[in-house]
Amino acid sequence: MEILKNKIKEYGVLISDQVLKVDSFLNHQLDPELIVDIGREFAAIFSQDEVTKILTVEASGIAVALTTAMELKVPCVFAKKNKPSTLQGNVYSSVVYSFTKNETVTISVAGNYIEPTDRVLIIDDFLAMGSASRGLVDIVKQADAALVGVGVVIEKGFQQGGQELRSAGVRVEPLVTIKSLSEGIIEFE
Amino acid sequence: MEILKNKIKEYGVLISDQVLKVDSFLNHQLDPELIVDIGREFAAIFSQDEVTKILTVEASGIAVALTTAMELKVPCVFAKKNKPSTLQGNVYSSVVYSFTKNETVTISVAGNYIEPTDRVLIIDDFLAMGSASRGLVDIVKQADAALVGVGVVIEKGFQQGGQELRSAGVRVEPLVTIKSLSEGIIEFE
Repeated sequence: MEILKNKIKEYGVLISDQVLKVDSFLNHQLDPELIVDIGREFAAIFSQDEVTKILTVEASGIAVALTTAMELKVPCVFAKKNKPSTLQGNVYSSVVYSFTKNETVTISVAGNYIEPTDRVLIIDDFLAMGSASRGLVDIVKQADAALVGVGVVIEKGFQQGGQELRSAGVRVEPLVTIKSLSEGIIEFE
Repeated sequence: MEILKNKIKEYGVLISDQVLKVDSFLNHQLDPELIVDIGREFAAIFSQDEVTKILTVEASGIAVALTTAMELKVPCVFAKKNKPSTLQGNVYSSVVYSFTKNETVTISVAGNYIEPTDRVLIIDDFLAMGSASRGLVDIVKQADAALVGVGVVIEKGFQQGGQELRSAGVRVEPLVTIKSLSEGIIEFE
């Protein structure tokens, strides 16, 4: 996705050779036009897959999951962190570790929002070590629903999350893949 | 907003005489069509106010803030909870208490995403005790930006958040106001 690569080149900030900050347009400040384009791109990639539900996890995944859901005209569910008091009854949960926040959280989805008849597309902003994606895949399995695939805006190809998911038979579709962040250079695949 | 009232009547679940659960369409599962309509409604209400930025707080505010931003064609910023490692440098922060989660969190916005020249519209899903909104108003003040107002999808009129903000001179625009949740009945104003 050329427009996204250009945004990353222009506005991405390298924090280290592991961490790319894109919070001026993707996960702190949102560029609505780009977020809509990203949703259209995911919808095009998965247009033949009869998706019935989009699944993401709060918070940074919500924007791109929503625009994908708008385009595919299906509901979007976001897993909650630190289960709120309003989440009761049958709940699917999984434990996820965030490297950027250095914390372990339990993510949860109310049982009635993913059903065995659902064909679920997981959408997220980043795929690095893959902990969040694995947690969401786990939730889809608990719900006995069909997993269509995982769409991520940016995959860090030099970290193992994507590789592990693909080895487990999951279809992973990044809009851009970063090969390396070494020596202060953002190198795309 | 009639379509929203109907959704609440049809799908809202009363947890107690204080708590209304609308997570089948607004803050756990999202109905994309409704979320777009909500954004259009906010955009119409504030169309004359030369808004330059939408501000919300993760996670439930992001969807409606984004669709408002799409309509007004301005960027959307969401305050982060529990400051991630990628948020560095000049940061505006405020302490917020969540009654549904029973926790105190610090919400933060990177200093470069709200500037003194900005005209900021705060958007959120719920206004009850008003802690989140007050935190966001506080951040707008720290940034020396102009506060256009606060748009909320659902105001609980029987709790004091809205009243307190209005007394402080803040323009508050709810799409629907709930007068009471007593005796198992959702009563609108």
